[in-house]
Amino acid sequence: MRQSQLLLTTLREAPAEAEVISHQLMLRGGFIRQLAAGMYTYMPLGRRVLRKVEQIVRDEMDRVGAGELLMPVLQPTELWQESGRYDVYGPELMRLQDRHDREFALGPTHEEVITSLIRNEVNSYRKLPVTLYQIQTKFRDERRPRFGLLRSREFLMKDAYSFDAHWEGLDHTYWTMFQAYHRIFTRCGLNFRAVEADAGAIGGEGETHEFMALADIGEDTIVACTCCEYAANLEKAVARSTGEIEIAPVSDENEHVSHPSFDTAKMEKFHTPGLRTIDQLVESLHIEPEEIIKTLIYMADDQPVAIVVRGDHEVNEVKVKHILGSEKFEIASADTVSKATGTPSGFIGPCGLTIPVWVDYAVVQMSSGIAGANELDYHYRHVNPRRDIDLRHVADLRNVIEGDRCPRCDEGELKLHRGIEIGHVFKLGTKYSEKLGATFLDASGTEQAMIMGCYGIGVSRILSAIVEQNHDQNGMIWPYALAPFQVQIIPISVKDTLQMQIAEKLYNQLQDRGVEVLLDDREERPGVKFKDSDLVGIPVRIVVGKDAEHGKVELVERKSCNKETIHIEDVERRILELH
Amino acid sequence: MRQSQLLLTTLREAPAEAEVISHQLMLRGGFIRQLAAGMYTYMPLGRRVLRKVEQIVRDEMDRVGAGELLMPVLQPTELWQESGRYDVYGPELMRLQDRHDREFALGPTHEEVITSLIRNEVNSYRKLPVTLYQIQTKFRDERRPRFGLLRSREFLMKDAYSFDAHWEGLDHTYWTMFQAYHRIFTRCGLNFRAVEADAGAIGGEGETHEFMALADIGEDTIVACTCCEYAANLEKAVARSTGEIEIAPVSDENEHVSHPSFDTAKMEKFHTPGLRTIDQLVESLHIEPEEIIKTLIYMADDQPVAIVVRGDHEVNEVKVKHILGSEKFEIASADTVSKATGTPSGFIGPCGLTIPVWVDYAVVQMSSGIAGANELDYHYRHVNPRRDIDLRHVADLRNVIEGDRCPRCDEGELKLHRGIEIGHVFKLGTKYSEKLGATFLDASGTEQAMIMGCYGIGVSRILSAIVEQNHDQNGMIWPYALAPFQVQIIPISVKDTLQMQIAEKLYNQLQDRGVEVLLDDREERPGVKFKDSDLVGIPVRIVVGKDAEHGKVELVERKSCNKETIHIEDVERRILELH
Repeated sequence: MRQSQLLLTTLREAPAEAEVISHQLMLRGGFIRQLAAGMYTYMPLGRRVLRKVEQIVRDEMDRVGAGELLMPVLQPTELWQESGRYDVYGPELMRLQDRHDREFALGPTHEEVITSLIRNEVNSYRKLPVTLYQIQTKFRDERRPRFGLLRSREFLMKDAYSFDAHWEGLDHTYWTMFQAYHRIFTRCGLNFRAVEADAGAIGGEGETHEFMALADIGEDTIVACTCCEYAANLEKAVARSTGEIEIAPVSDENEHVSHPSFDTAKMEKFHTPGLRTIDQLVESLHIEPEEIIKTLIYMADDQPVAIVVRGDHEVNEVKVKHILGSEKFEIASADTVSKATGTPSGFIGPCGLTIPVWVDYAVVQMSSGIAGANELDYHYRHVNPRRDIDLRHVADLRNVIEGDRCPRCDEGELKLHRGIEIGHVFKLGTKYSEKLGATFLDASGTEQAMIMGCYGIGVSRILSAIVEQNHDQNGMIWPYALAPFQVQIIPISVKDTLQMQIAEKLYNQLQDRGVEVLLDDREERPGVKFKDSDLVGIPVRIVVGKDAEHGKVELVERKSCNKETIHIEDVERRILELH
Repeated sequence: MRQSQLLLTTLREAPAEAEVISHQLMLRGGFIRQLAAGMYTYMPLGRRVLRKVEQIVRDEMDRVGAGELLMPVLQPTELWQESGRYDVYGPELMRLQDRHDREFALGPTHEEVITSLIRNEVNSYRKLPVTLYQIQTKFRDERRPRFGLLRSREFLMKDAYSFDAHWEGLDHTYWTMFQAYHRIFTRCGLNFRAVEADAGAIGGEGETHEFMALADIGEDTIVACTCCEYAANLEKAVARSTGEIEIAPVSDENEHVSHPSFDTAKMEKFHTPGLRTIDQLVESLHIEPEEIIKTLIYMADDQPVAIVVRGDHEVNEVKVKHILGSEKFEIASADTVSKATGTPSGFIGPCGLTIPVWVDYAVVQMSSGIAGANELDYHYRHVNPRRDIDLRHVADLRNVIEGDRCPRCDEGELKLHRGIEIGHVFKLGTKYSEKLGATFLDASGTEQAMIMGCYGIGVSRILSAIVEQNHDQNGMIWPYALAPFQVQIIPISVKDTLQMQIAEKLYNQLQDRGVEVLLDDREERPGVKFKDSDLVGIPVRIVVGKDAEHGKVELVERKSCNKETIHIEDVERRILELH
């Protein structure tokens, strides 16, 4: 394409509200423009990248036998009433009335619609399994849209749904999709991890993985092993100690297997006036946080419960909530704490509480800790959990921390990363098929609910993830597979007949070979052209300058900044090599 | 693709609400499913056809240098206030409030959004012309959605917008797009006409053409010449007589050039008790409708006006409205008629009225007509318009009728057809650029409003148009270019090892050659498979039956029903020939 025909306006400065680099560069490079908060126009360059992502997604979906369909954006909200999500979804679900006062929602996802479709189309096991997908604009009225395409209100998704006759079938479909996702993100050139995730947020009972592009500005924390493939969301990541500790209360028989540094000193109350926080204890007593036993009071479905973790650890509320099986789970107010324990917060400890006490594995491994004494201005020291704490309820209750040993390979260390969620795969099970009555007759003629899975990819979000991972101080650096054009040809002077002849010749020649070429035919100074070119980030730049008279051009790789002067006869070969 | 994997459910009967054949067949063939009134899911087969149409549109848009972008579906309604269309558009514009109570519309079209985009991106003539397009789901809350994809509330459109620095530029862009549209609809295999259309409906001042697929169920009437390329909407079609008649009042000097059958009899009042309608006059007086002069009273911006046409002609309100330059134009009530003329309706005539009288050309050509006498129960006969009617206002005021001579070639006759609007091209001029302030500096540094055009294609509607034009009693007949698959392979018995081996071999072989193949691997009776196959309408069917043991298969063309038994070695060659 000729740049003079392309609507491409670059900006020297990004608007102040663009906080992250991908947002800034895509605005500056003319890839997107904002229409309203969280709503963007994809300009021609951005649209081209988006189409490439779409095509990769489509290829890989087709390859695993998923059928493409396209469901309406507008969904009758009765379906959301049927599934029970109408109220749960809250104001993120955009709603409107049609001219006959019937209510519709702008689809943020399509579980309800597809389940209601399939219940009419499929009634026998002989028509299962089936997997369907669509690539479609979705709507979610985010309270605080930000980061450009990363958290927008109107965005492009690939959503897929599978229907199986039995759980083994779902398992197979799930891993097939998992592998397809691996291929998709690999083809996109992303640095990503598939992490085990918590199922709670979406609903359903099953396994789920999130695909995370690693990036410092990611909104999620993920945990990955330095040695093996283990990776998980912070919410889900298993702390190494799990299941390895003898959790029975200490008794005479196993006293001899106890920790080498086992402290035989008796538990002892001491005066700690005003020392309410870990920091205050550390500073005042000259100890390390990991020597402290931290006790927090939560309300689990309106019942108080004490959660006990090491002083340097954080309670993982998602894990605790699952273990307790509670619907609501939140930190108790100071008032509630006093009422439940008879002690002001800051001095609560696990010894002598009358409410249920849940203890993290890492606490059990301690030998001599400091804990609140359940009395104003007093703590205990020499607390030996195996001896002094009620250990009927021990579990993995904490967030992992950097440096924890890997729970899978036991060799690597866990590192924390920030990640952008670009995809997820999810075993829904029968949550929607039961609610919406999507049943089939199995081989024996018995009615069964279909076993479902759902699989999402944030198509537009991938653009942001790519730019976060591929840029330098001068602009974006697009990988070949997603670049809006693979090659940009820049004649130094469009008024120079020879330069333009060569530029046009290469332009036509490369296009004939299937290379997507952008010809900068604008009457601009070379400096302006180069600056724009760096910003936009086409992988290869061919500069037709004064060497043109010797039949030579300069070829520059955007990523490496490698320059080579080559004969125009060699350009095609070199480009196809680089590609 | 294997049919067992494809979600394809055919129906024996179409639901009763499907009134037209394309709607019935697409439902029966499993191409679409209704989610709510006027909202459809495109099932895998329908989606495949839709994608082919999209690709043809994209090809031809790219070919003429239009850049693809993607604008948000949600549009801040302030933009519609700016353009003045907020109130005009009425309830078809679907509106909603976001969580901050800001109002948005679901885009039915994007003039406002693109104009507000371009006003920020382009400020110099050096960046013009530019043409941009998108392929996107649009929303229009039709009062009465019907005919499946023909009049739906959520539909797929290609909309394009051009911006030029001067009117000659727009003219060039317009005709470039016009030709691209010709190629698009030709490639789709449609029988269509580009018709001159009336600009009033969309707004703007310029030229406009509609592309109409000919089909009996079309909602528009179009007029086309049997000899030349002339075609127009009924609203716009020019009646032959235009400009050819001597319209000056008859005077002594030109008496001798008058019509051969010029009636010299004097105008004469006669008693016509109770004869108020053309039909009553015809029956009672044993005359033809074309002998009657019909006078209708309209209100043009609250002023009464008389419109005079021949008895067998219909007033073309769009033409009259344009000629009068009125905003509002509607037939007067009986009350108003009495007040304006002093006569009850049924006896109004052009002679002696005190309100403005507009006379159609065809009336001027009459020599002896019957007209109302502006007196209850009386008409005039021997009315000679050139002699008896005030001819200060003569114009083309009527609909053309079948058999009228062509106004362009003067040789052919006009025929009336029904058409489905599948596309339009429109010279918008400065309507939106002025309202929304999309200006640029021209070469002399003067600020100018950009000259715009807009160009739409009803992508989803094309599916209906194709099926209306291509079906028989057994089902749809897809043209190669749009068929969801080009070839369907049907083994008579999937349990026959040899048949399945050959079917699989051909399946793989043809796919390797780039042919899209559907393999009917279902365990169904041959009768069921053939019936489904006819319904779905894949262009070529390969039947692998008992001749398989002699290395032969049957090849059936869906359209011609031609059957040939050929050796499996020859299948690939034959398919590529037919393709």
